Amino acid sequence: MRAERLITNIGQLVSCAGAGALHGRAMRNLEITTDAAVAIAAGRIVWCGRRADWTGAVDEELDAGGAAVVPGFVDPHTHLVWGGDRLADFEARASGVSYESILAGGGGIRHTVACTTAASERDLLSCASARAMQMVRAGSTTIEVKSGYGGDLAGESRQLQVIRALSLQVPARIAATALFHLPPSDAALRADFLHEAVTHWIPALATSRRASAVDVFIEREAFSVADANTLFRSARTAGLRLTAHADQFNTIGGTELAVGLGASSVDHLEASGKAQIEVLAASDTCATLLPGVTLHLGLPAAPGRALIDAGAAVAIGTDCNPGSSPLFSMRLALALAVRLNGLTPAEALTAATANSAAALGMLDVGRIAPGMRGDLLILQSDDWRDLPYVLGGELIARVLVAGRDLSS
Amino acid sequence: MRAERLITNIGQLVSCAGAGALHGRAMRNLEITTDAAVAIAAGRIVWCGRRADWTGAVDEELDAGGAAVVPGFVDPHTHLVWGGDRLADFEARASGVSYESILAGGGGIRHTVACTTAASERDLLSCASARAMQMVRAGSTTIEVKSGYGGDLAGESRQLQVIRALSLQVPARIAATALFHLPPSDAALRADFLHEAVTHWIPALATSRRASAVDVFIEREAFSVADANTLFRSARTAGLRLTAHADQFNTIGGTELAVGLGASSVDHLEASGKAQIEVLAASDTCATLLPGVTLHLGLPAAPGRALIDAGAAVAIGTDCNPGSSPLFSMRLALALAVRLNGLTPAEALTAATANSAAALGMLDVGRIAPGMRGDLLILQSDDWRDLPYVLGGELIARVLVAGRDLSS
Repeated sequence: MRAERLITNIGQLVSCAGAGALHGRAMRNLEITTDAAVAIAAGRIVWCGRRADWTGAVDEELDAGGAAVVPGFVDPHTHLVWGGDRLADFEARASGVSYESILAGGGGIRHTVACTTAASERDLLSCASARAMQMVRAGSTTIEVKSGYGGDLAGESRQLQVIRALSLQVPARIAATALFHLPPSDAALRADFLHEAVTHWIPALATSRRASAVDVFIEREAFSVADANTLFRSARTAGLRLTAHADQFNTIGGTELAVGLGASSVDHLEASGKAQIEVLAASDTCATLLPGVTLHLGLPAAPGRALIDAGAAVAIGTDCNPGSSPLFSMRLALALAVRLNGLTPAEALTAATANSAAALGMLDVGRIAPGMRGDLLILQSDDWRDLPYVLGGELIARVLVAGRDLSS
Repeated sequence: MRAERLITNIGQLVSCAGAGALHGRAMRNLEITTDAAVAIAAGRIVWCGRRADWTGAVDEELDAGGAAVVPGFVDPHTHLVWGGDRLADFEARASGVSYESILAGGGGIRHTVACTTAASERDLLSCASARAMQMVRAGSTTIEVKSGYGGDLAGESRQLQVIRALSLQVPARIAATALFHLPPSDAALRADFLHEAVTHWIPALATSRRASAVDVFIEREAFSVADANTLFRSARTAGLRLTAHADQFNTIGGTELAVGLGASSVDHLEASGKAQIEVLAASDTCATLLPGVTLHLGLPAAPGRALIDAGAAVAIGTDCNPGSSPLFSMRLALALAVRLNGLTPAEALTAATANSAAALGMLDVGRIAPGMRGDLLILQSDDWRDLPYVLGGELIARVLVAGRDLSS
């Protein structure tokens, strides 16, 4: 065998066992190889194992210095493209002002929609790109990015164009999702909106490949289960993957609907109870935790421990957005999932790699194994458990995307 | 006036109003100057104000690019010198094992004491230095470092020697504190220990200048109020500053004792009730919050909001240590204090700068004003509120210590 690059002197090579999403306590099954090496050719892993077992030829060696190496993080849930900021909201809320008063004063998500609409595509791209690069340096080698601040379908299309441009600009793989976030407030406009979405807009999404998935925010103040059903069926017909914001504040049936339609992921779940946990545990749908929201808003944490104990496949995302989760680091998301959602370190690593890849329907990232993309993190530590343990500080020495060392 | 360096093009120059610690809602009183500049000579700030008002001569200009500039953080509570690690404890606890079982299995703080005792001074220094440099890059320009893992008085002296060496190696100012952390478990040994401490060891600390303060962990399982009283009186006689670990799990009178003896700071306070809050509010003692412990151990947060509302001077520290707070970033400590302790962004900035300087009895750091050390952070943002808002990611463009740009 011939490889372009051999990463040698890996103290611990850490990856999830098996293939696809790991369910329940199987999420603890990490494969750890000591004195390991990884061979990469054409951006893919072609071999990995004990260094002593490598017999091929290589063009170049990269010495990991005895450090631990883990798969690059897959962030399955972000809203990276936004205009303006929410610093005034943050300050007001920390001073005891209610979200209702902030909304009444012109703040909240409508402010972000207005600022996003007012911003040029160039500015939106520039800001989103800077954010994405911070996330890459914090270890994310695949990043899902949603629309959802467009205000109307034309605005959503504009956001998806920015996401397309972003995917050409940053080294991480970008997965674009069309998010139905805020319905028109007027009932008649809402019917027209849904009609237009399912007859033209969603089918065009698929043909233009502007998005690979459709997401719906299913909540009392957002889209109903009936609306979501309409949107999801159109998306499924068009061959798009399904994902949902569900059970964030109320359990109105969003999880049950999305799982029933074969969604790859249902996200948030802070309000999920026994019934929703059982539905997720009996399915192939990933249950995606967003602990940044828990920390930032001080709301209850999603029942990560109970989901895993019931047998669900749990994933983790940053939910990076200006209002409810200004979290720019998957490493910190892992650390928070251990503290706030009750995951073990191994479960958190699986949730942020193999399982979050499955949440995005991706089979070729999230593990270190032959055939996988060469997305790797070389740590500054010889023990991978430092990854969820250390709060703040520096822990990632090098980020490799498709075998390319971004720090060199 | 002549300056060696003029930092120009500062979009927001942010510092606390007044002098010394700010109490209660006065902690919100920030002075923000736009289009500002700061002049530095011989490591000190010699002038700051509107750029247009500067009329002196300078050797060199540093363009801040329109960014916000804040005082360097003062971290008033760390345990940076330790040997070994507590990753096994972390994994066990996240898997549901009780702290009692971890202790019984040879883990916990006694493990850290054993590893610290076994490590060479060279290794202790090397690890502590790497940790301190991470903290500096995250914005800490003054760092307090405690002993406390020495096992006995000779071991404590050894830790203080490492802290002395650390202060010569890292660019941040280091404040050394002798911490009475774990008393001998045997009652007779305990009496001998206290006798030796107050008759020889503490007086020698002051004459050798190995520490500027004495700290006592006052808790049911650690030192009693009577023990602490003995140690503190000896320290006060020797001219050392007093500080205490108090009310972490139980309110046994530690706060009342320390405040009564004029301690500069009482730290932890997770269990403090109305009585302790009133004592602190009526004093000049800083109430130091350690939100990393709250996040890491999932314990109740100290009543930061109630302390400020009652009129106390609140400070923030990382409490960086391997068992209860592996937090290496004062920026994240600020962010956590807003979310977990109910501080506003302005209160958090004051707590981490002017008030944490007061907690260490330092008058020449924690503010940007003439006479202060040239310890400044140039942000990547033009709005200082991003500092407590952003979770993870990158926000500090340059760290200046005594006027010297550490990134150049």
